[in-house]
Amino acid sequence: MNIPYETLYQFTLSVFKAMGCPPDDAITATRALIAADIRGIDSHGVARLSGYIRLWEATRINATPSIKILHETPSTAVVDGDRGLGLVVAPFAIKVAIEKARIAGTGWVSVRNSNHFGIAGYHAMMALEHDMIGMAMTNASALVAPTFSIERMLGTNPIAVAIPAGEQPAFVADFATTTAANGKLEILQRKNQDTPLGWVQNKVGEPSINANELKQGGALLPLGSDREHGSHKGYALGSIVDIFSAVLSGASYGPWAPPFPAYVPMPENMPGEGLGHFFGAMRVDAFRPAEEFKLHMDNWISRFRNATPADEQQKVLIPGDPEREMEAIRMKEGIPLFESVVKDLQQTGEKFGISFPGA
Amino acid sequence: MNIPYETLYQFTLSVFKAMGCPPDDAITATRALIAADIRGIDSHGVARLSGYIRLWEATRINATPSIKILHETPSTAVVDGDRGLGLVVAPFAIKVAIEKARIAGTGWVSVRNSNHFGIAGYHAMMALEHDMIGMAMTNASALVAPTFSIERMLGTNPIAVAIPAGEQPAFVADFATTTAANGKLEILQRKNQDTPLGWVQNKVGEPSINANELKQGGALLPLGSDREHGSHKGYALGSIVDIFSAVLSGASYGPWAPPFPAYVPMPENMPGEGLGHFFGAMRVDAFRPAEEFKLHMDNWISRFRNATPADEQQKVLIPGDPEREMEAIRMKEGIPLFESVVKDLQQTGEKFGISFPGA
Repeated sequence: MNIPYETLYQFTLSVFKAMGCPPDDAITATRALIAADIRGIDSHGVARLSGYIRLWEATRINATPSIKILHETPSTAVVDGDRGLGLVVAPFAIKVAIEKARIAGTGWVSVRNSNHFGIAGYHAMMALEHDMIGMAMTNASALVAPTFSIERMLGTNPIAVAIPAGEQPAFVADFATTTAANGKLEILQRKNQDTPLGWVQNKVGEPSINANELKQGGALLPLGSDREHGSHKGYALGSIVDIFSAVLSGASYGPWAPPFPAYVPMPENMPGEGLGHFFGAMRVDAFRPAEEFKLHMDNWISRFRNATPADEQQKVLIPGDPEREMEAIRMKEGIPLFESVVKDLQQTGEKFGISFPGA
Repeated sequence: MNIPYETLYQFTLSVFKAMGCPPDDAITATRALIAADIRGIDSHGVARLSGYIRLWEATRINATPSIKILHETPSTAVVDGDRGLGLVVAPFAIKVAIEKARIAGTGWVSVRNSNHFGIAGYHAMMALEHDMIGMAMTNASALVAPTFSIERMLGTNPIAVAIPAGEQPAFVADFATTTAANGKLEILQRKNQDTPLGWVQNKVGEPSINANELKQGGALLPLGSDREHGSHKGYALGSIVDIFSAVLSGASYGPWAPPFPAYVPMPENMPGEGLGHFFGAMRVDAFRPAEEFKLHMDNWISRFRNATPADEQQKVLIPGDPEREMEAIRMKEGIPLFESVVKDLQQTGEKFGISFPGA
């Protein structure tokens, strides 16, 4: 079932408004959420709308937060999200980073007391129109076992870096610091298929191909899969994201990060408040003239795009290429939704007397 | 053959002085170089001394550089290394970042016209004593093929992040953005052993276990090894390091990064000057009180150290643990050197009439 962007936008906007979000916040949240659907990261878009609503019902999300800067220096700030939607808190925070960068050259904002913010790449890309490099990362509930461990200690903790170019489209990397994102695992679960070796381990730490391993005490593996293939590097990356997002800000870190499913009880003895994020903005011309930088980025991108491919049928990609191509298609043809997602959206709408189109 | 630190220090210092480095620069370079030997990253220490000398002989390294800030804002700077030893240019640049951070909260320095800087972790760790988080990265000559490519486009482009703690030792991640560092490959070559699958590919892009594959047109693989295991993430990470280090600063990037071996001709049509680095320093108390941050870092570290291990014999490690343990051992017992390295050092010493102890 393909839903036009505008239809999905209006429905989601109505739901966020019905939840009590002020109109501007509802628009901000809707744009951030649906950015995932447009860019093809289906696991992070409207498929999660009902999850956000359940967190709100459980009073873990505050629909009318008073988002505040708690502390700042010329190039840094700590933001308290007041338990707001991460989809609203994150755009606030990256804007603070951008404003800091305007004056100080760069801006760095660590956020506490927030919730899931959708896709990291969306927030990082907000810096691009200002001729800035944007960065976004977040911690998340623990699903990942460090190298040598069987305990889930880290979330999939994504990192996004968006770098402006001139005539070429921007370089936009956005990736979980695990071998495979949890969303990819969910797709295999739905299809009842196995995972490749190296994505998950079972509860005693053995390699596994069972896509349902997480439900049986297993864990996702850090980027690198095992020690021999550099999993300690993925573990370090996920840890850096956790520390920048949560230890710097005063959010809850590591195994104490709050869970996304509202039915999962909050961890005991949380060492901080809510989920944490970290954002950065660097003015390109704080280093060299913007036009010069963009000219070289164009050169960088076209050189890499033309690197000799192993197979003529599969050219080398620049980070952000697949998502941009997906966006072009979906803005034209609409966004394909699984039947289960459509049903979920219908049920969410019914809570507020909002009908989902096609229902 | 185990050489005491002091002996190796005095010998290396004499060589750098004989090369023409001003006394202070010679001390700076020696400390940075030998940090690798002490911390167990043998490939980046005195084993490379003769390589630096050959670059100097080829006039690619300037022993008396005039290192300059070309452009700056409150939180950023671009530094020109004037073809100096990266071992001297990098400490200059991280100090600029630290000074910026003192006033603006953070400091970010991109460097052009430099050379190899030894281990990234050493430079990042310079921020620790100032209660700052330190970051260091560098581009390097191209050995790594992007996902879907057979062409060497990126160096092993390491990232180091050093984060201060309180009673616990600091968190120090320092890793190549490839599955395995080139130094590990060199060890296998020396022992005439195969690599695990996933470290290298052959010249047509097929998986290989040949440790000598790079000499036959093959390439190192980005962290993740193949597309299914996230090599596009390692490729993105290596690209970010390249862009921050070289496109922001005006150094030579991607496949045009200058080679370390002096016998390899410089690439044609280089788009920038020399090798590039990128450094960052973030004052912890630009986010929250330093004592509070360090208390939580201690908590973070001890929680992760005590994560349930898969095997009771192998506890979970914190990034930096292995190198710190190695340092304790080697400062006591001396630094073990391969016979080939000892011979190489002797020959290097002879050029300047400096005898290597034990010769």
